[in-house]
Amino acid sequence: MDDAAPESGERNGREGRAGGAPDSRGRLDPRLPLGVFDSGLGGLTVVREIAAALPGERILYLGDTARVPYGTRSAATVVRYAQGCARALVDRGVKALVVACNTVSAVALDVLRADLDLPVIGVIEPGARAAVSASRRLRIGVLGTTGTVASGAYPRAVLSVSTRAEIVAHPAPLLVPLVEEGWLDGEVPRLAVRRYLEPLARADVDVIVLGCTHYPLLRPIIEEEARAMMGDVQVVDSAHATAAELAGLLAERSLAIPEPRGDIELLVTDRPRSFAEVTTRFLGGPPREVHVIDL
Amino acid sequence: MDDAAPESGERNGREGRAGGAPDSRGRLDPRLPLGVFDSGLGGLTVVREIAAALPGERILYLGDTARVPYGTRSAATVVRYAQGCARALVDRGVKALVVACNTVSAVALDVLRADLDLPVIGVIEPGARAAVSASRRLRIGVLGTTGTVASGAYPRAVLSVSTRAEIVAHPAPLLVPLVEEGWLDGEVPRLAVRRYLEPLARADVDVIVLGCTHYPLLRPIIEEEARAMMGDVQVVDSAHATAAELAGLLAERSLAIPEPRGDIELLVTDRPRSFAEVTTRFLGGPPREVHVIDL
Repeated sequence: MDDAAPESGERNGREGRAGGAPDSRGRLDPRLPLGVFDSGLGGLTVVREIAAALPGERILYLGDTARVPYGTRSAATVVRYAQGCARALVDRGVKALVVACNTVSAVALDVLRADLDLPVIGVIEPGARAAVSASRRLRIGVLGTTGTVASGAYPRAVLSVSTRAEIVAHPAPLLVPLVEEGWLDGEVPRLAVRRYLEPLARADVDVIVLGCTHYPLLRPIIEEEARAMMGDVQVVDSAHATAAELAGLLAERSLAIPEPRGDIELLVTDRPRSFAEVTTRFLGGPPREVHVIDL
Repeated sequence: MDDAAPESGERNGREGRAGGAPDSRGRLDPRLPLGVFDSGLGGLTVVREIAAALPGERILYLGDTARVPYGTRSAATVVRYAQGCARALVDRGVKALVVACNTVSAVALDVLRADLDLPVIGVIEPGARAAVSASRRLRIGVLGTTGTVASGAYPRAVLSVSTRAEIVAHPAPLLVPLVEEGWLDGEVPRLAVRRYLEPLARADVDVIVLGCTHYPLLRPIIEEEARAMMGDVQVVDSAHATAAELAGLLAERSLAIPEPRGDIELLVTDRPRSFAEVTTRFLGGPPREVHVIDL
């Protein structure tokens, strides 16, 4: 392994086709961090799971807070933004890329995989596999952003795992602002959750996928309301499944780092006013430092 | 008046200091449309009032839907975005600019006025004057986005009208997503409104300013809840006051058009998925055509 990897990635990135950080024999340096990005800070729920599953890894996180939210934007715009985020991380040198955003995973994953010479993992495929494995009757409900639901990515991903599954996906656009406002309990989020669960209850699902990386913070009330409305129903989120699949992928490609020297570095494209509070809400622990970059 | 105004505006815009559309004697062409912009579609509540007050005017509206919302972004970012929006409208030829966004009015109005050679009107100063004139006890409450409230612009604007006024401003970040979701009545918006009104009720205000162009769509429940909590309280929004001040400014500068040939042209930077539904919600009438531009 050589140390030129980050520069190589940077050069490739500037040429338009970002190139990961493989050396001359096409190998990636295991000492590089994992790149994780999201439209904002919701992807930190995925970072939390990765840090728990892979405590030796360094994580370089990018939240495109200047352009959040992606969920209401057109697919073409989301693809363009995602390419910018991926390039920024690859230019800094990463050994794998985790797209910790359902909207990007839904519309841009194929483009990113074609663009990049390093492993790229999204949250929808792991989430779909986790949903199928948790479901007994294969009736699967999905809550997500407008963009994720409109893309049809969850039905496609679930059906690629089990052609017998039935999927009902509904947009729940207020849940992201509720999480960002910190209203994680109380009547307002509870009534909003209840309203968004109604079509899933009518469809008689037995698993509900949290199809947005913000939603795990509302998981307690989503589980309570879902059980009150539907009885025996499982709530699955893709963060845990994504971290598990990432661990397998790193091991299989000899890219894992076993030492306990993990570390999380945070980049954003605009400093949200309540940044410290929000990172604590997502990651736990004290407020964290952040670097602001321009894409 | 000559017809070269739009081209002149375009040239000036490209030189970095956008220059409005004055002719060689510094006059603006009254036949040009009014330029109105907002971070998204909330500014259409201001367009509705302008069209009612000035039915002969053409209106060119720009909603920066690719970068909405501005309310959570840093002041430096909002200034940069606002300059881009203003330049896009000035380059197309407008005789006056209405900043139909409280966040931009709060942090970027002085910069835009310094940049541009045409009248620029924001929503905060008219809103502050309307609040002072509606208040008997000069105890004024403001609801706005995080950015507008953090800027302190409403207290400054109110105090410039009356130094005896007392102002309490609180952020109400969930109200914008509630309006965009179309939840304008029912328990969720009602409970959210009640929660946001509590600090204003404790401060014993007698006027509440709707310090965001989205909020007029929630005005019925804001008025009901405010009266239930506070008794005799007035709710004022700045859209009506802004349209009235704009009418005076156009008349005073001989820029008004008396004929009833008004028309509204809509530009956005990204096509929101629910665009037709949202314009109908804001402007009434049938869904409208829109042009997507790049800034």
